[in-house]
Amino acid sequence: MSDPIPAILKRIDADQPRALDRLMELLRIPSISTDPAHADDCETAADWLVAELTDLGFKASKRATPGHPMVVAHGGEGARHVLFYGHYDVQPVDPLRLWNRDPFDPAVEQTARGPVIRARGASDDKGQLMTFLEACRAWKAETGGLPCRLTILFEGEEESGSPSLVPFLKENADELRAEIALICDTGLFDDRVPAIITTLRGLLGEEVTITGPDRDLHSGMYGGPAMNPIRVLTRILGGLHDDQGRVQVPGFYDGVGEPPSQVKASWNNLGFSTEAFLGEVGLSHAAGEVGRSGLEQIWSRPTAEINGITGGYTGDGFKTVLPSKASAKVSFRLVGGQDPIRLRESFRDWVIAQMPPDCQVTFAEHGAAPASAMETESEVFVAAQSALTEEWGLPAAFIGGGGSIPIAGYFQSVLGMQSMLAGFAKDDDQIHSPNEKYDVESFRKGVRSWARILRKLAD
Amino acid sequence: MSDPIPAILKRIDADQPRALDRLMELLRIPSISTDPAHADDCETAADWLVAELTDLGFKASKRATPGHPMVVAHGGEGARHVLFYGHYDVQPVDPLRLWNRDPFDPAVEQTARGPVIRARGASDDKGQLMTFLEACRAWKAETGGLPCRLTILFEGEEESGSPSLVPFLKENADELRAEIALICDTGLFDDRVPAIITTLRGLLGEEVTITGPDRDLHSGMYGGPAMNPIRVLTRILGGLHDDQGRVQVPGFYDGVGEPPSQVKASWNNLGFSTEAFLGEVGLSHAAGEVGRSGLEQIWSRPTAEINGITGGYTGDGFKTVLPSKASAKVSFRLVGGQDPIRLRESFRDWVIAQMPPDCQVTFAEHGAAPASAMETESEVFVAAQSALTEEWGLPAAFIGGGGSIPIAGYFQSVLGMQSMLAGFAKDDDQIHSPNEKYDVESFRKGVRSWARILRKLAD
Repeated sequence: MSDPIPAILKRIDADQPRALDRLMELLRIPSISTDPAHADDCETAADWLVAELTDLGFKASKRATPGHPMVVAHGGEGARHVLFYGHYDVQPVDPLRLWNRDPFDPAVEQTARGPVIRARGASDDKGQLMTFLEACRAWKAETGGLPCRLTILFEGEEESGSPSLVPFLKENADELRAEIALICDTGLFDDRVPAIITTLRGLLGEEVTITGPDRDLHSGMYGGPAMNPIRVLTRILGGLHDDQGRVQVPGFYDGVGEPPSQVKASWNNLGFSTEAFLGEVGLSHAAGEVGRSGLEQIWSRPTAEINGITGGYTGDGFKTVLPSKASAKVSFRLVGGQDPIRLRESFRDWVIAQMPPDCQVTFAEHGAAPASAMETESEVFVAAQSALTEEWGLPAAFIGGGGSIPIAGYFQSVLGMQSMLAGFAKDDDQIHSPNEKYDVESFRKGVRSWARILRKLAD
Repeated sequence: MSDPIPAILKRIDADQPRALDRLMELLRIPSISTDPAHADDCETAADWLVAELTDLGFKASKRATPGHPMVVAHGGEGARHVLFYGHYDVQPVDPLRLWNRDPFDPAVEQTARGPVIRARGASDDKGQLMTFLEACRAWKAETGGLPCRLTILFEGEEESGSPSLVPFLKENADELRAEIALICDTGLFDDRVPAIITTLRGLLGEEVTITGPDRDLHSGMYGGPAMNPIRVLTRILGGLHDDQGRVQVPGFYDGVGEPPSQVKASWNNLGFSTEAFLGEVGLSHAAGEVGRSGLEQIWSRPTAEINGITGGYTGDGFKTVLPSKASAKVSFRLVGGQDPIRLRESFRDWVIAQMPPDCQVTFAEHGAAPASAMETESEVFVAAQSALTEEWGLPAAFIGGGGSIPIAGYFQSVLGMQSMLAGFAKDDDQIHSPNEKYDVESFRKGVRSWARILRKLAD
């Protein structure tokens, strides 16, 4: 067939106002997966996507899980079969007072850096998944069909540890297995350079609760002899890192390797400035392992972070209480061959070994996903790299990913399927934070990028 | 005059149902001083007390302060002039879910240990201050007047650091100065033995807030190079004590002495069981300084406690956030000659010296009161000791006080006036905790105890 791309790109640009309207509809649905109060909103978001996909000619359905539903759709024909993955759930919005507008009342705002779509989920991941659907819409409108055989999988639990994902993949393996998975949940490099992820850090989430006395006590009456669980918790978590920033859990670095020298060399050619990267958020010093570059600390080194801590009286004023309980949420970013299951045991043993008399500790698990590495020589990677280079006018980079997108690991382990991650988010999108946004330009060029990639996959 | 005590005690017992009704009225007023939302309730409690005192023949008035009002009343005649102090404000009630009833819907509940008055403030301090007013009521009803010249001072900010107290004492020194202050805000020893406090620990309250990045960050994108303020806070607070339970703030033990040997000897004669004391709250080991007895740890040794800590995501589920801020409320119980002002500076310097690059720390102060010691040879102490011994049938003990009742120190420093602290609370009253209670027997014998003490002061 003659190259439909020029007409498709033209149509994408002409149709953009309506594409933005469609994205706004999805953003208005407060599908916070980690908060049980928003379960119905997750259902609503799934229904909305089923209707959208059906309108695009897909055979689409909502699939129940023990948690929030999956959306699965099939469309197009041909020998080549690719799966596209995205997630419709979003992070909580607290602290709400730091938002400049209702997180679920999206709007296009003009900023010094150009127009942005402001809303929770605008970037992570509703805006990104819609880039693919809008690319399909333009293909269909221009050519009457889809460029190849496509399976769509949208998840509603990505922001809460994906508890239902692996069982669902196992139960529907034959239906979902494709040549490769395309995942749009990542960003540009340095806000300019189109990027394809070649490695992803894994994630282990743990919640630790320490109990001392069987009730809250008055520190005047009991202060001294009564053990304070906050004292125990801070003592243990305060020892999570040494002075060199290395994690102290025994065996933590087992399976952590070094990236290939050519990869490290390519990173050095990216001209990444740790100071500029941190400067964006009011910081100046790389606080990770001493002797590691900023990129290494994000892409190839594991971490331990305390994501939340609470205990005792935290309201206005002061209360001289010795609390009964204190708890913390701790997560580990994993690389290489680190085994999340073994590390969970090792972390728990390390905490338990530090319990003083009269203190009990309980743990809750919040996900465990290994790191993953991609086969960058494959046909699809090469095709995507050239398509992105054409759209963005800059050579697309193969980079590491600091975040955890466990789905890539699950596609590999459950379906034996590789993943290619390409996305258009920017470092200042403030995902997981107040005032999340997605650049209108990220959205526009994102749609155009997928159209070009589909063109090459259709060959 | 003939001894009115037998008739007064008879009347106290006969009038008890109405005395309980009056206490219930006061307990229904949610006068939480630390929470600005309850400012009006503090006014209401003060008005209620003014009305009660007026009904008892006192010249009573509510006195405005920059914070919650004071209640001052004068009554009776004679050469001997004593001041009675109590506080009408109460602690916050969180966590509310742990209460078995509305904290401000008081009721008498039958328990295995006898009837108790269940409500926030039942023991600390509304029930205790009412023991004195009911003793006055019985005196007046039986003799037509009060046994000596009495000044009453009720405060509404005792649970929130008493910010208005010292200025008020200074401005009204001549009106308030008496031979001695009687303070009813303490407890029985070992739930059985009437006790008079001879030493009180001081209290220093500090709030520490550490700021890292200028917004909450995603730990996937920034985990590693971005400094996490919870990591810094736990590192610092985790080092507050050494392995021997000694506080690590430089100069912390300056001015800390040992009690006189005869005092220590008398403590050993009290038959105090640390195991039994801690067993009441589900603990078994004295967690304070190694080598110090349980009584020393409560009465004669200083402490550092973390009363509250918060940072990052603390809701349901999990959020991989690197928070911008983390904070903690820390308090120190002081003994002997420890200088709270100097210790505040020392604590702040110690924290500031541990700040890594990219972290800022701010402090808020929540009170600073030195420890105090009483002149136990004075006439009033001897009189009270014999009166309490008569009422309770056990020799009244001179004991240390673990709690901080800064008012005693202020009466000394501002008015040059000694204080005598005697109270009827029990260790299991759960003051500052859910399900606070006051034994009906504590209330009954408390009223009778004050009647007997007033009799001896009247001589």
